[in-house]
Amino acid sequence: MMKLKSIVAFAAAAAAVTVAMPAAAQFAKAEDAIKYRQSSLFVIGQHFGRLGAMAQGKMPFDAKMAQENADVVANMAKLPWAGFGPGTEKGAPHKSKDDIWLEPEKFKELADKFVAESGKLQTAAKTGNLDALKTSFAATAKTCKACHDEYRNK
Amino acid sequence: MMKLKSIVAFAAAAAAVTVAMPAAAQFAKAEDAIKYRQSSLFVIGQHFGRLGAMAQGKMPFDAKMAQENADVVANMAKLPWAGFGPGTEKGAPHKSKDDIWLEPEKFKELADKFVAESGKLQTAAKTGNLDALKTSFAATAKTCKACHDEYRNK
Repeated sequence: MMKLKSIVAFAAAAAAVTVAMPAAAQFAKAEDAIKYRQSSLFVIGQHFGRLGAMAQGKMPFDAKMAQENADVVANMAKLPWAGFGPGTEKGAPHKSKDDIWLEPEKFKELADKFVAESGKLQTAAKTGNLDALKTSFAATAKTCKACHDEYRNK
Repeated sequence: MMKLKSIVAFAAAAAAVTVAMPAAAQFAKAEDAIKYRQSSLFVIGQHFGRLGAMAQGKMPFDAKMAQENADVVANMAKLPWAGFGPGTEKGAPHKSKDDIWLEPEKFKELADKFVAESGKLQTAAKTGNLDALKTSFAATAKTCKACHDEYRNK
């Protein structure tokens, strides 16, 4: 884990996270922010998991269903990150590593990659082509894993 | 609480809920379905709450922020109901009343009203007019309350 160098560094990091948050992000308390990020990521994960089941042949491929699921993932991809604002490193049980608040720019970079890939996944799902879906699903899954490996405790 | 009349009635009710669910709704276990409906409703509630704060003058009105929040509510409005499928009346702690599975058509009717109003709310938010937002927020909040009063334990 990166060491916290000073209060100044932390304040700068916190400010960066604030900038990364959409304007709509406002939580009454840290607990709500934590629940929000967990909730939005869980919903995304459920829909993303269905795309994975289709991509891996564990569920019959259904173009309409794939598109519906990809739409939810893409529509929600930007949401969770607002729940990682300054002061939300505690307040409720969670699996987030402190590094999120110590390396906010790196965290944002990984989150942005997921947002970008989920947009491409939505486009791929619209084609109705299973191979396109498979390729884009794998690319998106890679961005999930990259961030989980780095910032989520097991 | 409405009494369960027979296994036949229950099976019919369960089938009705299945019909009400989008094709994409598939959960590995009841616990996931419960977590899914709770998570999606929580996320919706956070965004809806911000619209309420603006409508009630507790937060300065910001047209762009209102639109962003209304978009999330409208985009997610159809999601939670898939998590109320047959067999999800138990599996994890929750506040849902059994009546949901006993009166699925009535439950669906109330859910549909929320979906319809959240669409109008999105349209109202797009106008950038605070009065339009206030009116539509109140109408949508009424549909939340109607369903909570009937189907959610306190």
